[in-house]
Amino acid sequence: MDKSHIRHLLDLSKEEKKAFLDSFDAIMSDCDGVVWNFTGPIPGVDEALQLLKQNGKKLAFISNNGMRTMDEYREKFSKLGIESQEHDIVHPALTTVKYLKSVNMQDAVYCIGTEVFKNYLRSEGFTVLDGPTERLPDGGAANAVRTFASYFTDTSGPAVGAVVVDIDVNVSLSHLMKAKCYLDRNPDCLLLVGATDYVIPLGDNMDVIGPGYFIDILEKATGRRALVLGKPGQALSEFILEQFHVTQPERTLFIGDMLPQDMGFGARCGFQKVLMLSGGTTKAMMFAHNKPEELPNFYADSFADFIQLYKDVMD
Amino acid sequence: MDKSHIRHLLDLSKEEKKAFLDSFDAIMSDCDGVVWNFTGPIPGVDEALQLLKQNGKKLAFISNNGMRTMDEYREKFSKLGIESQEHDIVHPALTTVKYLKSVNMQDAVYCIGTEVFKNYLRSEGFTVLDGPTERLPDGGAANAVRTFASYFTDTSGPAVGAVVVDIDVNVSLSHLMKAKCYLDRNPDCLLLVGATDYVIPLGDNMDVIGPGYFIDILEKATGRRALVLGKPGQALSEFILEQFHVTQPERTLFIGDMLPQDMGFGARCGFQKVLMLSGGTTKAMMFAHNKPEELPNFYADSFADFIQLYKDVMD
Repeated sequence: MDKSHIRHLLDLSKEEKKAFLDSFDAIMSDCDGVVWNFTGPIPGVDEALQLLKQNGKKLAFISNNGMRTMDEYREKFSKLGIESQEHDIVHPALTTVKYLKSVNMQDAVYCIGTEVFKNYLRSEGFTVLDGPTERLPDGGAANAVRTFASYFTDTSGPAVGAVVVDIDVNVSLSHLMKAKCYLDRNPDCLLLVGATDYVIPLGDNMDVIGPGYFIDILEKATGRRALVLGKPGQALSEFILEQFHVTQPERTLFIGDMLPQDMGFGARCGFQKVLMLSGGTTKAMMFAHNKPEELPNFYADSFADFIQLYKDVMD
Repeated sequence: MDKSHIRHLLDLSKEEKKAFLDSFDAIMSDCDGVVWNFTGPIPGVDEALQLLKQNGKKLAFISNNGMRTMDEYREKFSKLGIESQEHDIVHPALTTVKYLKSVNMQDAVYCIGTEVFKNYLRSEGFTVLDGPTERLPDGGAANAVRTFASYFTDTSGPAVGAVVVDIDVNVSLSHLMKAKCYLDRNPDCLLLVGATDYVIPLGDNMDVIGPGYFIDILEKATGRRALVLGKPGQALSEFILEQFHVTQPERTLFIGDMLPQDMGFGARCGFQKVLMLSGGTTKAMMFAHNKPEELPNFYADSFADFIQLYKDVMD
C-alpha cells in the first residue's frame, strides 16, 4: 500500500499549508497523548490551542477516557487557557448516559468501570451494580471454579438491563463472569462498551493492557456483539454529528494519536484527520499500518506544530 | 467434512466391539467431565473402571485441573475403588515442576494460579511470587491506569525467570500487568502455561471463562508465545510418552470430553481417541467441529458404556 501521500504538516508548501488551515472550521481532538500525556501537558499545546481559537476554529474534545470527572477535565483545560464555555468535551461515560436514556433504561446496570464512570451513571438516576470487590475463596479442598456456580444460580437482586464495560484497573475474572451471567440470563440485556482500546500507552515501553481484550472475552463467551459508545464506534459518530450539528464533516479536523480509535473514528465521521506522534503511535507504526481507513491525511510531531504552521503561512 | 465414520461405541457390531476392546492395553483419561463432573462421580464410572482393570487395561489420568491436591485426587479415585498404586495422575502443576527442574530454574517464578498450584511449586523449592491481592486505588482524582506505572518502574524484588499461568479464579488485570512487566523486562523470562481451556464447563449452561483467554492477552500484549505444559501441548505429549514408556501409542486409548484439549492432545500423542458426551461437548458440537485432528475415533455417552460394551462381547 502506497502511503507516500501521508505528509508531515510542516513539509507542505506555503500554499498547501494555507489551504490546509483554511480547510476546516472546527477541531475535534483526542486528549491523552495529544493535549497531555502521562507526565503533563504536551509542550506548546496551550499556545497552539490559543492560536487556533484566535483564528476562529471551534474546539471540541472527544476522549475515550471516562476516568476523569468533568471538573478535572475543565481544570486541566483551564490551565491551558481554554475555559469551559470555549469547548465541549465528550467521553464514554457521557455517551453511555445518553444512550441509556434514549432506550429509557429502567432496570439496573452492571458496570465494569472506574468509580468516576459509575458515579456518572448514578448521578443520572441509574441503579448501578458492580463488584465483587472481595477476592474469591481459593481453598485447597474446594474446586475453585465452583465459586462461580453461585453466580449462575443466584438470581436474587434487581433485574439487570445492561452490562457496561469501560476501563477498570481492577477488572477480574469475577467481573467478567458476573457480566456473562447477566447476559446469558436475559437475552434483552444490552452489552454497551466505552473505550475499546487494546493498549493504553503511559509512555516509553509502558503499555497498559486495555479494555478491548476484556470486551473480546465477553463477546466470545456470550456470543453477543457489543455496542461501542466510545471511539471508534458508529453510535458515538452519530451522537457527535448530531450534537455538534455537523453538516459539512469534511470541514472538521479530527486530531488524535491512535490509529483505530482516532483515525478510524475520524474516517467514520467523514472528518479530515491528523495523527500526532506525541502519544501511542510512532511514525514507523503509522507507515506499517495496513488499514487505509485508519490512516491520517497528514501527520505532525505534536499540537505545537500548529504554531510553526501559522508562522509559515504569515511569513 | 464427512464425519459419518465417527460412530457410537455401542453402535458397533459384536465383532467390531471385540476388536476395539482388544485394540488397546492402556487407557489415559481426562477426569473432569469424564470420571466425575460438578455434582459428583458420573454414574457407572466405578464399575466401568473396575471392568477395564480386571480386563488388564492399565489406567492413567491426564487432567488439566491442577486445582486439586494429589491427596484429593487419590481420595476421589479411592472412592471409585481405584487405589493409588493402580493408576497414575498427571496434571499441569506436576509437569510445570518437571519442566522448571529440566531447565534448572534458579530465579523466582511469578505464578497466576490457585494456591494448590503455587504450593506444588513452593514444595519443590521454587521461589513463587504472586498477587497483588489488594484492590488497586481507584480515586476520582488520579488517573487509574497510572497505578500500573509503578509496575514498570519498580525493579526491586528477586529476578523473575518464569511467568506461569494456570486457572485462577482471582485473575485480574493487575496480575496480567505484573506478568507483562516481568516478560517485557527480561527477554529470557519464560512464559509457561498449564491449562489453556477457553471454557470450563460446570454443567448445563454454566460455562466458566477459562485461562485460554488470559493467555491470549499475555501473548498479544508481549509478543511472546507460551509453552503449553497442559493438554493439548506438545511438551506434555513428550513428557507422557516418556514417563509411561509408550512404544506403541496406537495401543493407548485416550478418553476425554473436550475436543481441542482431549481429542487434539490424543491425536498429538498418536493415541486412539474416544469422546465422552458426559462433559463439555455435545454430539451436535462434535459433528459441527471442523478440525479433523480434534475429532475422536469413536464417541460414547459416558464411561458407563464400557459396562455394556463388555456385556455385548460376552453374549
